[in-house]
Amino acid sequence: MSVTDEYLKNNEAYAAGFSGPLPLPPSRHVAVVACMDARLDVYRILGLAEGEAHVIRNAGGVVTDDEIRSLAISQRLLGTTEIILIHHTDCGMLTFTDDDFKQAIADETGLKPPWAAEAFTDLEEDVRQSLRRIAASPFVTRHTSARGFVFDVATGRLAEVAL
Amino acid sequence: MSVTDEYLKNNEAYAAGFSGPLPLPPSRHVAVVACMDARLDVYRILGLAEGEAHVIRNAGGVVTDDEIRSLAISQRLLGTTEIILIHHTDCGMLTFTDDDFKQAIADETGLKPPWAAEAFTDLEEDVRQSLRRIAASPFVTRHTSARGFVFDVATGRLAEVAL
Repeated sequence: MSVTDEYLKNNEAYAAGFSGPLPLPPSRHVAVVACMDARLDVYRILGLAEGEAHVIRNAGGVVTDDEIRSLAISQRLLGTTEIILIHHTDCGMLTFTDDDFKQAIADETGLKPPWAAEAFTDLEEDVRQSLRRIAASPFVTRHTSARGFVFDVATGRLAEVAL
Repeated sequence: MSVTDEYLKNNEAYAAGFSGPLPLPPSRHVAVVACMDARLDVYRILGLAEGEAHVIRNAGGVVTDDEIRSLAISQRLLGTTEIILIHHTDCGMLTFTDDDFKQAIADETGLKPPWAAEAFTDLEEDVRQSLRRIAASPFVTRHTSARGFVFDVATGRLAEVAL
């Protein structure tokens, strides 16, 4: 049995205890952008109940065009007004360089990715970089708050990044 | 108090009950790509424990260049081999068109986004579209399985999309 099939079994138990549909728009008007890291259970880390906040995740929790797209839809169509950005300690993005990663792919496939891999060397500076990308976007303008944090995978604690 | 500050309070309780760091690579070798919708608590829907699977999320759960980037890093650097794609019923992406969304932004700001908004009209067909984008990518090739599902926000149940 694949892991996917195991997870589908888990879903049957989840559905058995599921209580009815919630409204589409996030009830607490929050959008979270976090790393895809397996250790970040964002709902538990922030104490989110279902239906409260959009959760956007990718490798690094970095803001690229696709996060701008998601945040624009989140704000303009579904009314979110606070942005919470989460990077974390021991992140995989600290362990390689864009050049090496893309060259390894090029060596294997003959094709170099046309996108940036978005690796970084300074966790807090990359949070600030992502916050600056939001601030610089003409498409994500409806928020009253955008704050960045580093999640410590050893303690479970969020620390705010000073601007 | 902002909602962000409330969530930071929640995080203190989470950290108080937190038990030590887990390894970086996902222990079950799975990468999930799901919609950012607030009602999708992916860890609960699939019964994921912390540390088991990468979770990538955006507006729609669609595969764009940034999901290819995240999946390439997930597979090549952190060893995931199964991909689970999750769209859901009552999705916001079914409620608008790319043209209207981008025109509204252009009318307000004078700038039309250079990216696709990725709205769709057929849920299952968009899951297949995302699966095809993965299949067509020269950079995401290390998986043994890529399966797509629709999550029903009324029942909590995942239904697999036939190819």
